[in-house]
Amino acid sequence: MTTVAPDLLRTLAEPDDADLARLDAWWRAANYLTIGQIYLRANPLLREPLTAGHIKPRLLGHWGTSPGLSLIYAHVSRLIRHTGQQAIYLAGPGHGGPALVAAGYLEGTYSEIYPGVSQDEAGMLRLFRQFSSPGGIPSHVSVTTPGSIHEGGELGYVLVHAFGAVMDNPDLLAIAVVGDGEAETGPLEGSWKGISFLNPAHDGAVLPILHLNGAKISGPTVLARKDPAEVRALLRGHGYEVIEVEGDDVPGMHYRFAAALSRAWGRIRDIQAAARVGEWDGVRPVWPVIVLRSPKGWTGPQQVDGIQVTGTWRSHQVPLSGVRDNPEHLALLETWLKSYRPEELFDATGAPTALVCEQAPEGDLRMSATPQANGGLLTRDLDLPDFRGYAVSVKRPGEGRAESTRKLGELMRDVYGRNPDRFRLFCPDETNSNRLGAVFEVSDRAFAERVTPEDVAIGRDGRVMEVLSEHNCHGWLEGYTLTGRHGMFATYEAFAMVSASQTVQHGKWLQEAKNLPWRAKVPSLNVLLTSTAWRNDHNGFSHQGPGLIQVVLTQRGDVSRVYLPPDANCLLSVADHCLRSRSYINLIVIDKQPQLQYLTMDQAVDHCTRGAGIWDWAGTDDGTSDPDIVLACAGDVVTMETVAAAQILRERLPGFKVRVVNVVDLMTLIRPKDHPHGMSETLFTELFTDTVDVVFSFHGYPGAIHQLVHGRPDADRFRVRGFIEQGTTTTPFDMTVRNRASRYHLVMDAINNAKRLPRGAADLKAWCESQLERHDAYVVEHLEDMPEVRDWTLGDWAQQG
Amino acid sequence: MTTVAPDLLRTLAEPDDADLARLDAWWRAANYLTIGQIYLRANPLLREPLTAGHIKPRLLGHWGTSPGLSLIYAHVSRLIRHTGQQAIYLAGPGHGGPALVAAGYLEGTYSEIYPGVSQDEAGMLRLFRQFSSPGGIPSHVSVTTPGSIHEGGELGYVLVHAFGAVMDNPDLLAIAVVGDGEAETGPLEGSWKGISFLNPAHDGAVLPILHLNGAKISGPTVLARKDPAEVRALLRGHGYEVIEVEGDDVPGMHYRFAAALSRAWGRIRDIQAAARVGEWDGVRPVWPVIVLRSPKGWTGPQQVDGIQVTGTWRSHQVPLSGVRDNPEHLALLETWLKSYRPEELFDATGAPTALVCEQAPEGDLRMSATPQANGGLLTRDLDLPDFRGYAVSVKRPGEGRAESTRKLGELMRDVYGRNPDRFRLFCPDETNSNRLGAVFEVSDRAFAERVTPEDVAIGRDGRVMEVLSEHNCHGWLEGYTLTGRHGMFATYEAFAMVSASQTVQHGKWLQEAKNLPWRAKVPSLNVLLTSTAWRNDHNGFSHQGPGLIQVVLTQRGDVSRVYLPPDANCLLSVADHCLRSRSYINLIVIDKQPQLQYLTMDQAVDHCTRGAGIWDWAGTDDGTSDPDIVLACAGDVVTMETVAAAQILRERLPGFKVRVVNVVDLMTLIRPKDHPHGMSETLFTELFTDTVDVVFSFHGYPGAIHQLVHGRPDADRFRVRGFIEQGTTTTPFDMTVRNRASRYHLVMDAINNAKRLPRGAADLKAWCESQLERHDAYVVEHLEDMPEVRDWTLGDWAQQG
Repeated sequence: MTTVAPDLLRTLAEPDDADLARLDAWWRAANYLTIGQIYLRANPLLREPLTAGHIKPRLLGHWGTSPGLSLIYAHVSRLIRHTGQQAIYLAGPGHGGPALVAAGYLEGTYSEIYPGVSQDEAGMLRLFRQFSSPGGIPSHVSVTTPGSIHEGGELGYVLVHAFGAVMDNPDLLAIAVVGDGEAETGPLEGSWKGISFLNPAHDGAVLPILHLNGAKISGPTVLARKDPAEVRALLRGHGYEVIEVEGDDVPGMHYRFAAALSRAWGRIRDIQAAARVGEWDGVRPVWPVIVLRSPKGWTGPQQVDGIQVTGTWRSHQVPLSGVRDNPEHLALLETWLKSYRPEELFDATGAPTALVCEQAPEGDLRMSATPQANGGLLTRDLDLPDFRGYAVSVKRPGEGRAESTRKLGELMRDVYGRNPDRFRLFCPDETNSNRLGAVFEVSDRAFAERVTPEDVAIGRDGRVMEVLSEHNCHGWLEGYTLTGRHGMFATYEAFAMVSASQTVQHGKWLQEAKNLPWRAKVPSLNVLLTSTAWRNDHNGFSHQGPGLIQVVLTQRGDVSRVYLPPDANCLLSVADHCLRSRSYINLIVIDKQPQLQYLTMDQAVDHCTRGAGIWDWAGTDDGTSDPDIVLACAGDVVTMETVAAAQILRERLPGFKVRVVNVVDLMTLIRPKDHPHGMSETLFTELFTDTVDVVFSFHGYPGAIHQLVHGRPDADRFRVRGFIEQGTTTTPFDMTVRNRASRYHLVMDAINNAKRLPRGAADLKAWCESQLERHDAYVVEHLEDMPEVRDWTLGDWAQQG
Repeated sequence: MTTVAPDLLRTLAEPDDADLARLDAWWRAANYLTIGQIYLRANPLLREPLTAGHIKPRLLGHWGTSPGLSLIYAHVSRLIRHTGQQAIYLAGPGHGGPALVAAGYLEGTYSEIYPGVSQDEAGMLRLFRQFSSPGGIPSHVSVTTPGSIHEGGELGYVLVHAFGAVMDNPDLLAIAVVGDGEAETGPLEGSWKGISFLNPAHDGAVLPILHLNGAKISGPTVLARKDPAEVRALLRGHGYEVIEVEGDDVPGMHYRFAAALSRAWGRIRDIQAAARVGEWDGVRPVWPVIVLRSPKGWTGPQQVDGIQVTGTWRSHQVPLSGVRDNPEHLALLETWLKSYRPEELFDATGAPTALVCEQAPEGDLRMSATPQANGGLLTRDLDLPDFRGYAVSVKRPGEGRAESTRKLGELMRDVYGRNPDRFRLFCPDETNSNRLGAVFEVSDRAFAERVTPEDVAIGRDGRVMEVLSEHNCHGWLEGYTLTGRHGMFATYEAFAMVSASQTVQHGKWLQEAKNLPWRAKVPSLNVLLTSTAWRNDHNGFSHQGPGLIQVVLTQRGDVSRVYLPPDANCLLSVADHCLRSRSYINLIVIDKQPQLQYLTMDQAVDHCTRGAGIWDWAGTDDGTSDPDIVLACAGDVVTMETVAAAQILRERLPGFKVRVVNVVDLMTLIRPKDHPHGMSETLFTELFTDTVDVVFSFHGYPGAIHQLVHGRPDADRFRVRGFIEQGTTTTPFDMTVRNRASRYHLVMDAINNAKRLPRGAADLKAWCESQLERHDAYVVEHLEDMPEVRDWTLGDWAQQG
């Protein structure tokens, strides 16, 4: 790659008259179509005088941001046409949906995908009428919008999506428009630092365009009202070269924006060229950002009823709201629409004229048609090693110990090695802490800021993404997978709630995409929680909470998956499955500490494939008749306690028939009509019987199990133990005691709930109570010494008897 | 208030020898106590040679950030001593818990609160041994730490807490230390803009201290490795005057930090003085920020085993980890501890020497003792108007319509008026949208940036907090309430998930505080969700999700409350209750659109006081025997559908006995042993019977009800309808159809589940199905016209029959 020829930059910066005419025509057409979507239910081309009957009964949509979004789109399209640059457009002010829909329509993509919305008068009418209507499309940029990987609902994520999209995507330029409302959010403000993790050689580029039009829904914004010198300083501080464009004059704004875009693009290409021929000095590049100041509602009615509208928050949504009842408003609307000279923009059939069409790039270079925004089309399967090769050897269940996630780290190391262009791990500075550090054998952490000799596993070429921001990690992974690549987000369980809303929104995206045949499936969003509620013993209560499971359970079965592998081999099997899967939210929860191992690899594969099963070796159930009690479990710590409880019962209450059921795939508990993983009634009965009481020990909040088993035979018989928000700095075993989920509690639960009890049950209960008293005494006695984790959690339970 | 005398500033900036000696001694003592907490289980004063037996079995805690935190604490204490400034200290790097605990201990506060941790050798030993131990205290700054309103767990909120604390608190200075790890988070980056909403006359001040020690847990941080000029630009861009202190030399660093603090404090007082005598020019002040660059693990062992530790991530937690087994490490630890010259710091009894004690301020001015950090002590009840005065007149239930939240807005307007110093509303730019705009009659929005003549209800003196950041809104309210004032956070239901993690963490804080008798109860955190999942019809699927209810339900009964008032009078009653309450998370969910009104004010008060009740007028249950079905509901939209279903059954299936139960206080459903609001078994049976099937229509996810009623008599009989993630841009009524919770679905559910059916049931079912077919046809037919909300949701249901 060489730097750009000066002639080309000049051409870009200084449109000639023909180019300008095309550009401006396209912009006018987009604005016209935007207003049409908001207002018109008939007479789309104004072939007859506008009447109240042509106006929609309910006026919805956001005009204010739209003309700016369309201006940018037009200019980037021109850049593409002149340069062949591959680009994707992310609209942070995503409520400017009609602008982006208009763009896709003008480029022809919309009609290709939705043939009913054809490029003629009938199609235009349908375009207008479907907007913000039942059975139609939302008012925001959405999954239905061709060219989008970014939903315009919850604000704050446009830059994280853009940076995720360009990672390992060297030829892609992401145009990321940041609205000044969005710029007030924390996640957005924290996402400018994407450039500190960007490699100009193997990654593409993000061009942020901060669009300051001054107002949000009902007031001014901070950045719009700050001294412009402060805004410049802020962006320079974030590491950017600031290019400013301001005004509302046409064609002046076209010339100025073209010059700004040319300069920004030239700068990006210079940075990339230097890095790609090995001439990068290693100093983090100063990437360009454009600050565009144009009036809110630009080109709309200046004043309405004597009150200023354009340039104020009043043009945020529908600037003329009384058009059906107020003839003056109606006339204003007609004048406004005609100000774009639609007769120059659409021909007799209603199709865009050549003048408009020539402005658009062709084929896949159209931003509305780029396969980058339909990443499933670009997705290549991961080259995965055989996960069985990382197996922990298990001779007898519950005998050996291993750090399960360390095995996953080894697997991921080799996934990195085999897939240097399409797999990344995202993690708030905890890769080592989470025992995943094997990945550093093949890749450093990505870091574009200054590196010192003291640093370890950090470098320009690193591709492990560590930033102390769950929002960045989550959002980058979303952008990365939506453009067709694979990854995993590993984080603390309690702090997974920081990005819970992103999980919710991404789930909605995936679910909506499944309704659209043209959207190809993308790699799943894999979330690994390895520092779990039960074992954040020394970090204490603030780090203890299994909330994300509860969040994922609210999502529909089409997308949500929750896995609780009890040991390393199950984890490997589950991870392999998740890395192969498409368009799911896969939540995997497993502790990072040394933990008991139960299943051989063959057993693990079998167990995980079923999702749940009876652990014969753990129970005393001979299968000839119903057991006296079912001890069920989902989650590693609670599985250990359950197996221990079964052992106590086996040894101390002979003749009492205990069945142990372990659940890996939480969704198997749901009825099959409510989730595709839901196990059949027959299998459910095989595992849990129809009538025997079940003591279910769960990693998360107990209520989750109650909601999952609702509708199963006699669901009331499930007694659930789980995390009940009892936490502090204490030993891991004490965590189970405080949450009433220890082996002793489970034994007592079994005794309390079994219908038939052999002799000795009362004694055993008393013994359990004495064990708990002993435990409490021990805690008090050892008040000030935090014992090693090992002593407490991994002790041979038989010894504790 | 006048500006500060130059002499005083000079004294502050240039400590004399005696002052310096005290300062340095205090700092050394704090560092000594910090290390003691991490390492020692015996021999706290090193009266004998250090042996492995004196070392804790498990080494936990974070040394890296601690010396910096203690340096700042010492200097601010000195400032307080010289000036009488009231200050509160918020440690963003909250894992530096031992430093803050040491500070409280040196100031005597710790022993006052926890007499066992006395200022003598035995107390010091207990201080050491309790740290990070079962039954002891967490390793983070926490609820147990005197002087703290900020838990050091989840990062990102130190500035929002600080700004919330100083609002309407003109005499308070909040020292907010921002770690460079925390500075990578989105919420933190987005919270610098607090000054854009701060009024120097009626608010106090925040002095942020960005402590760049270079590293987080296992690598460098972005801000530490950026060109310092970029960091300066960033902070200037956020609106601050940057004062830098850098180095590791002592006493040099004392002199430089003293000078920096003096300058910052003088600048703050100048800004405040000008504003308070009316000399403020209205331009947003440029507030000071201190950037402190000191080595991570400063004053600790430089190298260990030949590898650099101080100044690198290796000193983040425990820099010497092998002390129990490695004699060299043990010797290094002893040398390190002795480097602070403990004999100068603690007398023969183990108490801090006069040299150390003289450094601390006295009484409530000690930051560890300030009542501002135990805000319940300062809390004054709100002066509340009689909420009955805002009642909506209800002649017949379900006849009239009103925007319920508009009534709440009127109530809040008068709360603002009566409590100009202790009530605020926090809302992402949606106060008007949420129909709460009456507050603008008495208060503008707070805004310290440039205001223009076009702006409405925005001004310097405004106290309604609108910023497009849920993180800021939530965090400010937390800081505001933890310092004893009252407020409400109003936001979109779907986007309440953005700050869900803050809700979780604040709930944990409140819960922990209840275990500490010395912590006085603070005003509750009131969260109002008014743009709900069911009525975000034109915004579509991304705006549709009742997730926060699910989150609050995971919290313990000590703190969590969820209210679903069905109409305006119930909302007023609930709001009054919440505004009077203490130390809860009160979640209130109600739509903002015009909605049916059911209860007179007297009925509403009675209904809300019980939390749930039978609506005789809606059903056909004569009370003489069990009904054929119970139709229960919680939430406004689903209540409307339930009442409509009951009406259909009444009219079309005479003789079928329907009971309608409405639930306002969701927690009444839980068993009383699990929640203090849980209704008694008797009352539960009175409402729901023990055996009759219940069709429960719920605002949130159906699973919530299953988890709530678990353990109630025959809980399996509850069939729940609710939000099942079916959403799009559509009519409100279609939302209920898509989620299978419409009146017709409820009627069919009633028929399907009732044990006894009169003649005509099959016909009615068929009729319901035909109605739904008609509806579907209508939606298709009217595909492209979004009808007015009114036509669909508020239609007289009788007419629809």
